[in-house]
Amino acid sequence: MKRIEMPAGLPGPVVLLSHRAPVAFRRTDGERTARRGAGGLVTALTDLATQLDDVRWVCAAGGSEDVAVAEEHEGTSVPVVLSDEPRVAEGDTGDDPVVPLRLVDVPSEQHDRFYGEIANPILWFIQHGLYGVWSSPDLGDDEHRAFDEGYVPVNLAFADAVADEVEAAGGTALVMLHDYHFYLVADRVRERCPDALISQFIHIPWPGPDAWRVLPPSMRDRLVRGLLGCDVVAFHTEGSARNFLTTVQELLGLRVDLDAMSVEVDGRTVRARAYPISIDVAGLRDLAESPAVARKAEDLEESLAGEDDQLILRVDRTDPSKNIVRGFQAFGLMLEDHPELAGKVRFLALLQPSRQDVPDYAAYLGQIGAEVARINAQYDDLAFEPVDLRLVQDLPLAVAAYSLCDVLIVNAVADGMNLVAKEAAVVNRNDGVLVLSENTGSHQELGEHAVTVYPFDIRQQADALYEALTMPRDERRAKLAAAAAVVERNDIAAWFSAQLADLAPGDG
Amino acid sequence: MKRIEMPAGLPGPVVLLSHRAPVAFRRTDGERTARRGAGGLVTALTDLATQLDDVRWVCAAGGSEDVAVAEEHEGTSVPVVLSDEPRVAEGDTGDDPVVPLRLVDVPSEQHDRFYGEIANPILWFIQHGLYGVWSSPDLGDDEHRAFDEGYVPVNLAFADAVADEVEAAGGTALVMLHDYHFYLVADRVRERCPDALISQFIHIPWPGPDAWRVLPPSMRDRLVRGLLGCDVVAFHTEGSARNFLTTVQELLGLRVDLDAMSVEVDGRTVRARAYPISIDVAGLRDLAESPAVARKAEDLEESLAGEDDQLILRVDRTDPSKNIVRGFQAFGLMLEDHPELAGKVRFLALLQPSRQDVPDYAAYLGQIGAEVARINAQYDDLAFEPVDLRLVQDLPLAVAAYSLCDVLIVNAVADGMNLVAKEAAVVNRNDGVLVLSENTGSHQELGEHAVTVYPFDIRQQADALYEALTMPRDERRAKLAAAAAVVERNDIAAWFSAQLADLAPGDG
Repeated sequence: MKRIEMPAGLPGPVVLLSHRAPVAFRRTDGERTARRGAGGLVTALTDLATQLDDVRWVCAAGGSEDVAVAEEHEGTSVPVVLSDEPRVAEGDTGDDPVVPLRLVDVPSEQHDRFYGEIANPILWFIQHGLYGVWSSPDLGDDEHRAFDEGYVPVNLAFADAVADEVEAAGGTALVMLHDYHFYLVADRVRERCPDALISQFIHIPWPGPDAWRVLPPSMRDRLVRGLLGCDVVAFHTEGSARNFLTTVQELLGLRVDLDAMSVEVDGRTVRARAYPISIDVAGLRDLAESPAVARKAEDLEESLAGEDDQLILRVDRTDPSKNIVRGFQAFGLMLEDHPELAGKVRFLALLQPSRQDVPDYAAYLGQIGAEVARINAQYDDLAFEPVDLRLVQDLPLAVAAYSLCDVLIVNAVADGMNLVAKEAAVVNRNDGVLVLSENTGSHQELGEHAVTVYPFDIRQQADALYEALTMPRDERRAKLAAAAAVVERNDIAAWFSAQLADLAPGDG
Repeated sequence: MKRIEMPAGLPGPVVLLSHRAPVAFRRTDGERTARRGAGGLVTALTDLATQLDDVRWVCAAGGSEDVAVAEEHEGTSVPVVLSDEPRVAEGDTGDDPVVPLRLVDVPSEQHDRFYGEIANPILWFIQHGLYGVWSSPDLGDDEHRAFDEGYVPVNLAFADAVADEVEAAGGTALVMLHDYHFYLVADRVRERCPDALISQFIHIPWPGPDAWRVLPPSMRDRLVRGLLGCDVVAFHTEGSARNFLTTVQELLGLRVDLDAMSVEVDGRTVRARAYPISIDVAGLRDLAESPAVARKAEDLEESLAGEDDQLILRVDRTDPSKNIVRGFQAFGLMLEDHPELAGKVRFLALLQPSRQDVPDYAAYLGQIGAEVARINAQYDDLAFEPVDLRLVQDLPLAVAAYSLCDVLIVNAVADGMNLVAKEAAVVNRNDGVLVLSENTGSHQELGEHAVTVYPFDIRQQADALYEALTMPRDERRAKLAAAAAVVERNDIAAWFSAQLADLAPGDG
């Protein structure tokens, strides 16, 4: 990642909070091992943390070996080398960056309620618009217990760990909280550390006030009040930031200022801001040049027989919010409209199975398989199947497909950002066209260089796929170049720098 | 209905538009018969129309005899006597009020698409929050055709009929459009009659902008732009009026003024306003005193054996938005919590089957029956079944039950107003307690005199039912009296008068 500009006047240290840890310890054959934490956010925060002079990172202990490491340090921070070979720091670590890690352990039953009953099913579903009247939660004793005895105490435990770190630094710090697992942390930290500068970044969409009425005030008001402990509540899009403020107004009755994008709470100003997250462009391009990706690209090219054959690609988790079934339906409809394309266009879907222990998610994977079978069966006389479904998590293959595809489709019902669109834009070398849902955060930046789709409209998505496949080469080239330029300019370093600049004194 | 005050300066005549007609003609045994149109809105508009000196009413021809009547008048207005015995006016009609009725006939295939494919399934579902990702519409060729070849031409046909009436009156008139069937009428009338004063009342909730993204811009933008042809767009609640303006801002990018509650469009000011609809209090009390109601009340009282027995009531159409299943689940949970109440509390549900040709609605009725059976089977040793489910439409029975019940539950997921709550408040004579959803329009006026429920929270609804059943008698009495006083003050005449006062020149 590029160097981040640190503005003057920020209170040190930076205290980060994320649910996932940047390192996972395990015990294999009696030996302690460690590997880097997975996921885009943790990767980005790791890059940030290793650039900062004074940083502490609070996160969840993910397994028994994490707990053992934490206990060896008597519950205080563990100094960890965050390199490609992460380890507990001992003795001289040379140039390798060392970050103090506070691994918070909570009782597993409490954690299950917090994570598996509130954050992932209920908050994720509300914020991605996945509920309707039939599918909404029936809030009974289990859900109330999960909130009261799971989400609340786990949030307070993490808040206390964060506040401990701030107090240890003398009470002033820049606290950067992350995501929907921790809506009750900021106001607790504010209570204990009134001089801390607190921001929270929410990486999923924030819907309007109506959506929150699925929860009773005893839950929803507390979640919103928790966030109002921040100085800045940050989102990927202006729309989410506005929705947050109108939620504050409608649910709590506070008067918000949509021009200044702020609200006064207890004599403090809380700002809502948008900073679109991005990717490490140089890092991704390095990967795209690697032999591993080259091998995958060769295989892919062989599988497309004809010279004029075209490749449509999607890369997603099998989450209903990704709208995978309607994407296939639109592809099937397009082939029916334009039978001359059958046998000439392949739809490669690289899908990572997700949350298969949740019945709705398991059923959704079934629907995906059924729709693919229906389309492929219709064209059983072709040299190849129109849809090539691969349920894999294979980053080199995904990058190879990014570089080769003619069309990348992202038709999500709702998506905080969607980095797939940004990744493909910077590594594609085939004048690929983005077909991009209006309901993704990426659409705010890339929409004008993409073919926009409306996620419930299968007719329109079919037409959009056809438009992308038949777009003249020079128009394709110009659109891709413009999209790539946007991503290069607004990269992950720019994302951090913009937040830090807004948090520096003098801006508020 | 009480006399409505007509403010000075309103342009005459008043041109009303509603989908339903105030009279329905039929042919029985070769004879033409006529009966009054059903439904609360038509009843209220009939009362209004008969008070106005100069009024024309545009509505849909509902059957072949309506079409025959219209044809006999060569497509122009039919003078109709709107009394208890409605008829085409001929010769001297004495004191009976005559209203010119314009019965608009559109091709039945077009009407089916307009009504059965767009207005009732799609707009109703969007505006009541009934869609989730799994239940949202898949917009394909059928839905696009239903919009383009149904909703659009039917709206234009009605708009032209309205504009004809305005032009016949010299181009100035007060045009009062009603409901979600006619979102494309106002701007067409505005085009043909720039001097008309146009208002449209929307009787169902208006959700925030997110909900409208189920539709592509080719539909949603057109619907919203159509409404912006009005001078005033009216709703039952301030929340719906605010949601309308934020929808205009987010979808059309127009800057709205939430303080003035207005938006500038093409040099005109369009205002969003809230006028909570109500009931004809005197008319309902007359009915409550009738022998028919007295007989039903006697039967009901006999069915409650013990002196201390209590009656919970609900009166609804079997629409999923009414949240009937969760209401029974909450009742079942309350009986499990408080077994001492089993055998002492009966839940009478008067439910009118609704839209049984729609699969989701038929399935919902099945869920209702299943939940009732589950609860009643659990208490098979009692003298009476805890739930008394009656699938009937019986107004005298409903009014009798209003007057006798201890608790009325209205736990709708979303409801523009809900008049059941207001009706029960003015005829109950048993210090009955309202248990009222926060998501009904009525809650804005009656919430502080009711026990509020949160429609997805079964635990909370169970507790609320128990609270209502065990509330001290003097608290019950005070709450009911306060609720009744609100309804008496804000009755249906006040609803009209407030709209007319706002529309009179000098107010805008």
